[in-house]
Amino acid sequence: MRYKLLASGDKATYALVFESGDEIVEIMKTFANEHCLKASSFKAVGAFSEATLGYFDYTIKDYKKIPVNEQVEVLSLIGDVALYGNESKVHMHVVLGKENGDAIGGHLLQAKAHPTLEVILEESPSYLEKRIDKDTGLALIVID
Amino acid sequence: MRYKLLASGDKATYALVFESGDEIVEIMKTFANEHCLKASSFKAVGAFSEATLGYFDYTIKDYKKIPVNEQVEVLSLIGDVALYGNESKVHMHVVLGKENGDAIGGHLLQAKAHPTLEVILEESPSYLEKRIDKDTGLALIVID
Amino acid sequence: MRYKLLASGDKATYALVFESGDEIVEIMKTFANEHCLKASSFKAVGAFSEATLGYFDYTIKDYKKIPVNEQVEVLSLIGDVALYGNESKVHMHVVLGKENGDAIGGHLLQAKAHPTLEVILEESPSYLEKRIDKDTGLALIVID
Repeated sequence: MRYKLLASGDKATYALVFESGDEIVEIMKTFANEHCLKASSFKAVGAFSEATLGYFDYTIKDYKKIPVNEQVEVLSLIGDVALYGNESKVHMHVVLGKENGDAIGGHLLQAKAHPTLEVILEESPSYLEKRIDKDTGLALIVID
Repeated sequence: MRYKLLASGDKATYALVFESGDEIVEIMKTFANEHCLKASSFKAVGAFSEATLGYFDYTIKDYKKIPVNEQVEVLSLIGDVALYGNESKVHMHVVLGKENGDAIGGHLLQAKAHPTLEVILEESPSYLEKRIDKDTGLALIVID
Repeated sequence: MRYKLLASGDKATYALVFESGDEIVEIMKTFANEHCLKASSFKAVGAFSEATLGYFDYTIKDYKKIPVNEQVEVLSLIGDVALYGNESKVHMHVVLGKENGDAIGGHLLQAKAHPTLEVILEESPSYLEKRIDKDTGLALIVID
């Protein structure tokens, strides 16, 4: 993954371009923490060679995994970054398109770019905070 | 729903965070009108406990309702705000993900957050106007 | 299609509003080149009367066409613009919603607005470059 600062005004804007084989979730996490992101929003298009999606199952209070073992178009990847303690926590949801056009999606747990993923990310000069939600056990954004 | 102003430069940027049970369409409408939004664009991810989607049916010139009676991931929520007379009118489309990953979607008529919906909204220092379109009876954005 | 400059700060923000019958891909290409766009990102909602989607098939190194011959809601249209030589090259992925709510999608090859498509586009004061990728034959964004 290579990135470029596109604008450095009120909000910093970055392009992040992933190459074939790049693991999306790990690399986004590393980028977010190295740049100390505190309140970002991003969107992306591209394609994956494989992915693991998540559906939050309230009965087990965890993500049920949905494996995707085929080449898919990334029709939409939308996400945000907020602070959880000192950590920059990335949250991403995707919609993927199969060979016949059928769309599937979920919370993004893991995915490999193939041949590319083009992310445009904006970081605000403020912060968002996550705290553990008692009902789900998830770290959710809380505004006091 | 709680919100925070993340940036106040050329374009104001807000985070809106919905909690379990919050009705999305009503609250977005209230927020848009209380803040006199005139030209906004937003995107969001999260999850709903239930929703009603709409598909515009040209034969009846109205939205055909598609009920969603299950917990779904909000894979994508994209929308805008424009003026219709003195009213700030919100327009939202969603893609929702079911337990098996299947994606469904439509114009958002009603939905309940569960456990959260994280919206990032940008308001421009200009305006967009809606007028009634004769063919459909819908209020559509018109640029003269 | 009519457009309006909504903000002219660090990043220029445009609203592009398409009318019934407007061909999306051709008009976006013309707009991008007339405005010499070099690093843009956009999102949109609306509806199409018909469309042709693409799924990149690695066995033929070309897009397999998926025709959509019905009125569909545009649940999500996300894309970007980068330079390919002197050309402003537009890349768009869509998620479309059918009458029963089923979602389909792909790379956007061609589509007709009906009754509208509302695009919000941001152009950065920088540039992104595309080069031919040997593996796929596609022009992909490369950051050195």
